[in-house]
Amino acid sequence: MTRGVAGDAQLALLLDVAAAPKPGNVDRERDHHDLRFEQFLAGAVGARPGLDAAAAGAPVGEAFETAVAGMAERARDNTQFGALLLLTPLIRAAASADEVTRAAATDVTEATTVDDAVQFYRAFDHTDVGVADPPAELADLDVRRGADAIPAVRSRGLTLSAVVTAGAPTDGVADEWASGFERTFDAAASLCAGTAALPERIARTFLGLLAEAPDGHVAARHGSAVAERVRERAAALEDADRATIDAWADELVDRGINPGTTADITTAAVFVALSRGVRV
Amino acid sequence: MTRGVAGDAQLALLLDVAAAPKPGNVDRERDHHDLRFEQFLAGAVGARPGLDAAAAGAPVGEAFETAVAGMAERARDNTQFGALLLLTPLIRAAASADEVTRAAATDVTEATTVDDAVQFYRAFDHTDVGVADPPAELADLDVRRGADAIPAVRSRGLTLSAVVTAGAPTDGVADEWASGFERTFDAAASLCAGTAALPERIARTFLGLLAEAPDGHVAARHGSAVAERVRERAAALEDADRATIDAWADELVDRGINPGTTADITTAAVFVALSRGVRV
Repeated sequence: MTRGVAGDAQLALLLDVAAAPKPGNVDRERDHHDLRFEQFLAGAVGARPGLDAAAAGAPVGEAFETAVAGMAERARDNTQFGALLLLTPLIRAAASADEVTRAAATDVTEATTVDDAVQFYRAFDHTDVGVADPPAELADLDVRRGADAIPAVRSRGLTLSAVVTAGAPTDGVADEWASGFERTFDAAASLCAGTAALPERIARTFLGLLAEAPDGHVAARHGSAVAERVRERAAALEDADRATIDAWADELVDRGINPGTTADITTAAVFVALSRGVRV
Repeated sequence: MTRGVAGDAQLALLLDVAAAPKPGNVDRERDHHDLRFEQFLAGAVGARPGLDAAAAGAPVGEAFETAVAGMAERARDNTQFGALLLLTPLIRAAASADEVTRAAATDVTEATTVDDAVQFYRAFDHTDVGVADPPAELADLDVRRGADAIPAVRSRGLTLSAVVTAGAPTDGVADEWASGFERTFDAAASLCAGTAALPERIARTFLGLLAEAPDGHVAARHGSAVAERVRERAAALEDADRATIDAWADELVDRGINPGTTADITTAAVFVALSRGVRV
């Protein structure tokens, strides 16, 4: 009996938040004052019907919207929106092949339709998502308009892939869709290669991703200069001891700087690693 | 849209292990050297198909066996066997009524059959469960024999309720089946009444349950004298400050004393509270 693709995705959501230290994120050892550990547990439980739908072959947009609705209903905040946007096509790819690959995931995103885009916009009505302002000529397609933007999506005939990748390269999640999940699969390879306890490998992988590129969520909330300084500091700490990383994690939480996009990619990488047989 | 009975049960499993301090248990802040936090997350994910089956009205024994098989496969240890034995009939009761009640739960356990008992014995083949030796005249019904005991179960015509309640009053989980979930619902009432953050209420409820009766799992592993001393210490600490309870929690983990039965009842109480509308 397979352990189940939807279960792998749900466990990836849980392991991501349980790993520590993940500087700036809610983790096993840290809450933000307005976002707590148990909300991520609740979000992972609420998302399950959407994950199940994706594993059963539902359209990406529909499965994603179901996952976000359930997450928001249980967590009462946006805990895992970006992670679900990465997991949904990866689940579809994993469910239809012996092994999830970049090619299979790209096939899924490239096959998305206008109806998928419509469902994606509906997902924004369930929760507040921190995104950067779109260019002026795309204001009618601002995702934060939710269902109000659907006529514009339909009249332009935009697929979900077109809508999501319009955010690349300023949004790390969008960039994964555009690049065929390059960083996700690179990070998954490092998770598969390690021998430490899985939460420790996840925390190290998060730090490596954070050192590699400025976090999109931090950039949207605090500006690109702050995001770049966070990246530089992560790069300087990649080989640091646990206490030093812990101290920086505490500092980022105190400052309200949460590299959520990097956590989303980490979660997607954990899913790929689990689907390849990595175990707790 | 209902948040879902199976989701409430899964979230109860997660919130129970996330609450801290729960003296002697694996919790958000503590691992046992041979049992780690992430194994409980994996167990809760693996159990989900069994929880879904119970919510859909599957027989109690079949749903329980499915839940235990999935838990053991993902967690690679027995993380939540007792909790699942409490949750399964409670899920069935919650799914068939507007509100889960002791009467509805008792109806479910009293309606269990010999086939349910057979599935229950099969569940023991998936994982090692720490239980006390049965009386000599019941040796052929020792649950640790797993499927080997099925002919004895069938020839005696024992229902699941008869098998489980044979363990009362030495086993706290069995006692819940025998009493109509008395302590579960009392603890749920206290969870519903509190105003602190839910994990904090769960930790306090655990301590209250631990102070109330010797833990069956501790008694089976370390003897009834140790279980009684743990109960007395919990009673003395019910109004203690966090640091004092934390220190005792560390001590119990160091000594390998894990009040798992009390955690099982706590998990069941969290489920009842969630089904009554308590939120994270």
